[in-house]
Amino acid sequence: MSQQSLTFAEFQKHIAGRYDAADRERGWAKTFAFFIEEVGELATALAGEGKDPENLREEFADVLAWLCTLANISDVDLCDAVAKKYLGKDRPEGTK
Amino acid sequence: MSQQSLTFAEFQKHIAGRYDAADRERGWAKTFAFFIEEVGELATALAGEGKDPENLREEFADVLAWLCTLANISDVDLCDAVAKKYLGKDRPEGTK
Repeated sequence: MSQQSLTFAEFQKHIAGRYDAADRERGWAKTFAFFIEEVGELATALAGEGKDPENLREEFADVLAWLCTLANISDVDLCDAVAKKYLGKDRPEGTK
Repeated sequence: MSQQSLTFAEFQKHIAGRYDAADRERGWAKTFAFFIEEVGELATALAGEGKDPENLREEFADVLAWLCTLANISDVDLCDAVAKKYLGKDRPEGTK
């Protein structure tokens, strides 16, 4: 897949292809705990003095990957979700 | 933009186009707090009895939108971040 034009659908499918069996076996609650662990690491990276751009980028990637996993095991299509909420005619004005 | 093939870059740009000035003015710490508020709402939706698919989808969208905002004001390209971490030759094997 092209990395320049990576779609939500492609990444969600990629994560499912590699990890879906283990992710579904683990279930949403433990997966949510792992997601939160990555969110904590992102907070640390954001708050760090003399931020390390490479580490910050990696923590964003990890949070996004675990969010994709949560969506996969919840049978939620992220593209569909954001399109409906943020790109449709009923999208919020001014604030998210 | 096509909703069927929405890319990370398109969504990140869309969010920046609508909210970037306010988001940068608010700063990363308050924005992170708003992100966490949405993460909490996602937890509530995941844990709910008789899960509401529409609400669950919306909470995923909100978490993803605020993660995009955090990335925007941190000057992180999410596509680049996940491509390097999860699609490159040094991607993790077996576990995320």
